[in-house]
Amino acid sequence: MSQGSMINNSAIKPLAVVLLSGGMDSAVCAAIAHAEGYEIAALHLNYGQRTQERELKSFHDVADFYHVQKRLVVDVSHFATIGGSSLTDATIDVSDADLMNTAIPTSYVPFRNANILAIAVSWAEVLGAKALYIGAVEEDGSGYPDCRREFYEAFQNVIDTGTKPETRIILHTPVITFAKKDIAQKGAELGAPLHLTWSCYKRNDFACGECDSCALRLRGFRLAGLEDPILYVKRPVYE
Amino acid sequence: MSQGSMINNSAIKPLAVVLLSGGMDSAVCAAIAHAEGYEIAALHLNYGQRTQERELKSFHDVADFYHVQKRLVVDVSHFATIGGSSLTDATIDVSDADLMNTAIPTSYVPFRNANILAIAVSWAEVLGAKALYIGAVEEDGSGYPDCRREFYEAFQNVIDTGTKPETRIILHTPVITFAKKDIAQKGAELGAPLHLTWSCYKRNDFACGECDSCALRLRGFRLAGLEDPILYVKRPVYE
Repeated sequence: MSQGSMINNSAIKPLAVVLLSGGMDSAVCAAIAHAEGYEIAALHLNYGQRTQERELKSFHDVADFYHVQKRLVVDVSHFATIGGSSLTDATIDVSDADLMNTAIPTSYVPFRNANILAIAVSWAEVLGAKALYIGAVEEDGSGYPDCRREFYEAFQNVIDTGTKPETRIILHTPVITFAKKDIAQKGAELGAPLHLTWSCYKRNDFACGECDSCALRLRGFRLAGLEDPILYVKRPVYE
Repeated sequence: MSQGSMINNSAIKPLAVVLLSGGMDSAVCAAIAHAEGYEIAALHLNYGQRTQERELKSFHDVADFYHVQKRLVVDVSHFATIGGSSLTDATIDVSDADLMNTAIPTSYVPFRNANILAIAVSWAEVLGAKALYIGAVEEDGSGYPDCRREFYEAFQNVIDTGTKPETRIILHTPVITFAKKDIAQKGAELGAPLHLTWSCYKRNDFACGECDSCALRLRGFRLAGLEDPILYVKRPVYE
């Protein structure tokens, strides 16, 4: 294929805004959007979390992997002002993993995904994007209310009623019914760059292996029969 | 009434987050929330608009008027980064008033009210507020899609599905069916501090009298048979 035809192919692809946190769920979303024929516009949020810089690096690494030209990084550090979250308050310890505990964890930022989606839709409308992908997972055991399917169904109505008449942005939550195991499997199947992703809530150099997010990730890879390609301080076996 | 009983009365009032832009619509919302027995928590957004400092002054003046203790000012200047709005881009002229033109004006920030509501709900959930008031007006001639009733009805479903099970925040849009005339009348009836509000999109010292927002305001007061108590450079008569 000549370079000319590659450029032409690229020019006619519809655009999808993909929320890219730096974690594996959103990297698999990017892989799915790519496989479904979209040009990706990548959106990342800095919300004052402890591992902000490390997640931003993974965002750019994953975006580079998919040759993403349109990138937007938005600072939402007012989440820290609003408070209510151990992720944004260095004086509160991040809960250690307790996968049997279905209560809402201390890392909860109230209504965070609505804030993220609102920013994403604003950008999508400016860009003329046709789709918006978010790697929300309903059954990851964390119990965030704004990760449930009915929340996203309700948000689609907000998009439809709150944007210009000629705008039609379809909200995709392609991994919402997935367990972490399914995400690892889907990522492997689509060649998603899971080695470039970051999930740990506690550390910036090697993943801690002990926080909720590390535990869910390690268990997911184990149940999928895959090895997690990132580096850990320790790698406990989670049942 | 003793000071002690005043403090006790204040302590048992339910809390309402009121979005307070500094303009008259939101000031009348504050008056309505106050009249309906709520303690007000006042939220203001700086989104990089030309008249940001002047609107912030009006926010504090109106909040002082209602003895508001809980205030939050959030910087959402990423709206300027997202672009698509003459309000946030000094290189684009603000449209002069054309009240017969029902097209979406150049001052449109895509999906702005969804962003604002998301921030407000996050704060409301942290505070344990029972209500959220926004001074959206459907029929002000500006044609913003996210000022329509169906948008707010859809957003109530997003609040209900995206917040904790024990949370119940009722979204109030008490002036949504009002013309500017009705807002001026309601404000006068409730003793709202309209003299402390600011509406002009162009100037920070005296209102210009010529931008869309000044024109709608001046026409509203005139139709209500009231005099607008703020100072203008000029005061055209709008039919």
